[in-house]
Amino acid sequence: MGSELAVNHQEKAYALLKADADKILKLIKVQMDNLTMPQCPLYEEVLDTQMFGLSREIDFAVRLGLVEDKEGKKLLESLEQQLSALHEASQKK
Amino acid sequence: MGSELAVNHQEKAYALLKADADKILKLIKVQMDNLTMPQCPLYEEVLDTQMFGLSREIDFAVRLGLVEDKEGKKLLESLEQQLSALHEASQKK
Repeated sequence: MGSELAVNHQEKAYALLKADADKILKLIKVQMDNLTMPQCPLYEEVLDTQMFGLSREIDFAVRLGLVEDKEGKKLLESLEQQLSALHEASQKK
Repeated sequence: MGSELAVNHQEKAYALLKADADKILKLIKVQMDNLTMPQCPLYEEVLDTQMFGLSREIDFAVRLGLVEDKEGKKLLESLEQQLSALHEASQKK
């Protein structure tokens, strides 16, 4: 794996995590647009699973020393806020 | 994060994943020794959740270029084999 020596792992780790967070947000948006039932247990389960997966990735990056603890928490909180805003907006429809 | 510049991220990533895999194995052993009911739904759920979390971590490490795809798959397969051996042994009791 010699070619990856030049890679900045810190930047890459953060970019990957951010992309994964965006993917969850997109998934939930699609679910809401198509199902419009955020109280559905399946929806809750998908969201829980995805959030758990992301939190594991973030935790791993933090333990590796690639992402700061504070930064990782902020990423997760920001996603949670966006999701709850989305949720509220869908209930006002 | 200057002090982590000297860290070999590849080695550290693998060591962390291996430790997480061992933790799952230990958890399942403790559950079996104390509950002795591997057909319990809660047991299945805990195991599924833990395996999913680990697979997410491995996938992340692979995408970061810290662990080779083959190496990651081997780690997961080895854990699965150990778990199924454990499972079989408990059913013979």
